[in-house]
Amino acid sequence: MRLALQWAEKGLYTTSPNPHIGCVIVKDGVVIGAGVTQPAGQDHAEIQALKDAGRRGIDVRGATAYVTLEPCSHYGRTPPCCDALVRSGLKRVVAAMEDPNPLVAGRGMARLAQAGIEVSSGLLAAEAHELNIGFFSRMTRQLPWVRMKTAASLDGMTALHNGQSQWITGEAARADGHAWRARACAILTGIGTVKADDPQLNVRAVATPRQPRRIVVDSRLDIDPGARVLQGGGTWVVSAVTDHDREARLRDTGAEIITLPNAHGKVDLAELMRELARRQVNELHVEAGLKLNGSLIRERCVDELLLYLAPALLGDAQGMFALPALADLAGKYPLTFHEAKMLGDDLRILARFTRTTQSTNQ
Amino acid sequence: MRLALQWAEKGLYTTSPNPHIGCVIVKDGVVIGAGVTQPAGQDHAEIQALKDAGRRGIDVRGATAYVTLEPCSHYGRTPPCCDALVRSGLKRVVAAMEDPNPLVAGRGMARLAQAGIEVSSGLLAAEAHELNIGFFSRMTRQLPWVRMKTAASLDGMTALHNGQSQWITGEAARADGHAWRARACAILTGIGTVKADDPQLNVRAVATPRQPRRIVVDSRLDIDPGARVLQGGGTWVVSAVTDHDREARLRDTGAEIITLPNAHGKVDLAELMRELARRQVNELHVEAGLKLNGSLIRERCVDELLLYLAPALLGDAQGMFALPALADLAGKYPLTFHEAKMLGDDLRILARFTRTTQSTNQ
Repeated sequence: MRLALQWAEKGLYTTSPNPHIGCVIVKDGVVIGAGVTQPAGQDHAEIQALKDAGRRGIDVRGATAYVTLEPCSHYGRTPPCCDALVRSGLKRVVAAMEDPNPLVAGRGMARLAQAGIEVSSGLLAAEAHELNIGFFSRMTRQLPWVRMKTAASLDGMTALHNGQSQWITGEAARADGHAWRARACAILTGIGTVKADDPQLNVRAVATPRQPRRIVVDSRLDIDPGARVLQGGGTWVVSAVTDHDREARLRDTGAEIITLPNAHGKVDLAELMRELARRQVNELHVEAGLKLNGSLIRERCVDELLLYLAPALLGDAQGMFALPALADLAGKYPLTFHEAKMLGDDLRILARFTRTTQSTNQ
Repeated sequence: MRLALQWAEKGLYTTSPNPHIGCVIVKDGVVIGAGVTQPAGQDHAEIQALKDAGRRGIDVRGATAYVTLEPCSHYGRTPPCCDALVRSGLKRVVAAMEDPNPLVAGRGMARLAQAGIEVSSGLLAAEAHELNIGFFSRMTRQLPWVRMKTAASLDGMTALHNGQSQWITGEAARADGHAWRARACAILTGIGTVKADDPQLNVRAVATPRQPRRIVVDSRLDIDPGARVLQGGGTWVVSAVTDHDREARLRDTGAEIITLPNAHGKVDLAELMRELARRQVNELHVEAGLKLNGSLIRERCVDELLLYLAPALLGDAQGMFALPALADLAGKYPLTFHEAKMLGDDLRILARFTRTTQSTNQ
């Protein structure tokens, strides 16, 4: 199963909106086939592994398949994997976890068992869940997994008051940040960051065959049609106003306008998260300024902080999140540390909000 | 030598102002004696180890002694250890490091070699240095090793604007903080913290036979003679003014007044560090508020940050260090991460200032 998880990782940047699943087929203690989910519409991992064994001229009858998610039993863009596994004559199928979607959970395993295949699940389930945390979030919560990335000094500062902020963290942290961008279905920022930094918001520091969708929260449609985040087209601009002229100019760049106002004339961020899930966004990577960061946290839209701390103090400067003063410590936003790890000279921290940070009926 | 370092650690809370040294004597692959430096004026580790072997009735002739610091060759409060080692008939002495004091470095090893004992040094030197980092700082820089402890939320906040700050971090972090207090020669705070929290500033959460010296920086002698930090006597109050009445009242509590004004009517912090070294303070543990913390950092008095980060966000609140806004990122205070480790639900970070943070001729 460890090997199957390694195969699953090969699909980290490419399978969106599908989960990245790995499959390894073992016979007499020898790996005879392995595969990973191909981009949407193409083979699932199980089919790739069966084909791999076939290419080697090996008969898979009597073998065991280790797969990181319960095989599908329905017709989607591809025929059900269960049928292919049954036809192949496998003796046993071990899944890391059942499908988290309650509508399908267990059906694949049941179908295999009915066909006389030995089945079991739960092996390395936690690791398998981490690898597709966004897909599972969308299936079970109808929300993306929202990861907010920020880089700060050890005293929590991201930029000087005069705006200087480049290269607070080092090369390794920046490359790592791009790897997290690459695995996300979409990258979200705010109009403030677009105006201040004019970012491209794409993946450059690591190789990827797929660029994530770019999303800009821009309540008043202030974005300059020449902004780099619009170049190449496909960017979603999320606004709270209707302005046909501006919208038309933005559509000319290949952008799509999503209008989601709340009662205060701002973008309804909670509704935006639900809309992104409907649009099949599994993992949402947020790289924004302190205002949008603060709003997303206040509105409980964030699941995880990806925080790069540089070994330096900046003193009085701009913080990471604009959050109002609390009257009582009980009002703090609680998290759980998930990981802390050195990256070059910097420290990378993953921390997750501990209470239910999102709800579908806010 | 690993075992000798473990023996040295047994003296972590007790040997001040002497270094904590461990010694293990090995013969034919078997440990026949071990010891650790006793409180000042009593046996050094080597003597303890020889006595230990003696108590077991074992002849140490032909054995090897592993000692975490070059044995002393001078008469201090005890006779030179070198003489005892030579008399014992040891065949070989291995030291983790030479004495860092340039006036004595190498003399102990030379004396042993002259007496026909095989000598070598440098084994696990880095570990041996860490264990007595304060002693070595005082010997080589005539300054204590200054460790600044603070506990903050993940966004770098230590207290709400209304002053609420208790229990931001958990039980494990608080106990660990007391272990760092216990190993320090002295604990320093400021009058702001005394007024706000009235701390005892002693070691309670871990067992120790010795309480560190307590020091309060109080430029205007504002401290209330009933403050808990004065209870039990022995506290040093550092001021920038002379006020015979107030001083007399403080002396009645058993406190000593140290008057060290700078040109601005505040305590001369750099001079205070030199004075503390003269008073044989090896490790200085700072637990102060953001103002004194900021002043100590600005005046390059701090060597190391001991930072406990709690998994929570507090938003707009009080930071860790009052440091003025920078005009340019080049003016940042650079550090190096030394360690990051989970302690209960919290994250402990040790980071060291990278440039020479202290100089003896500021």
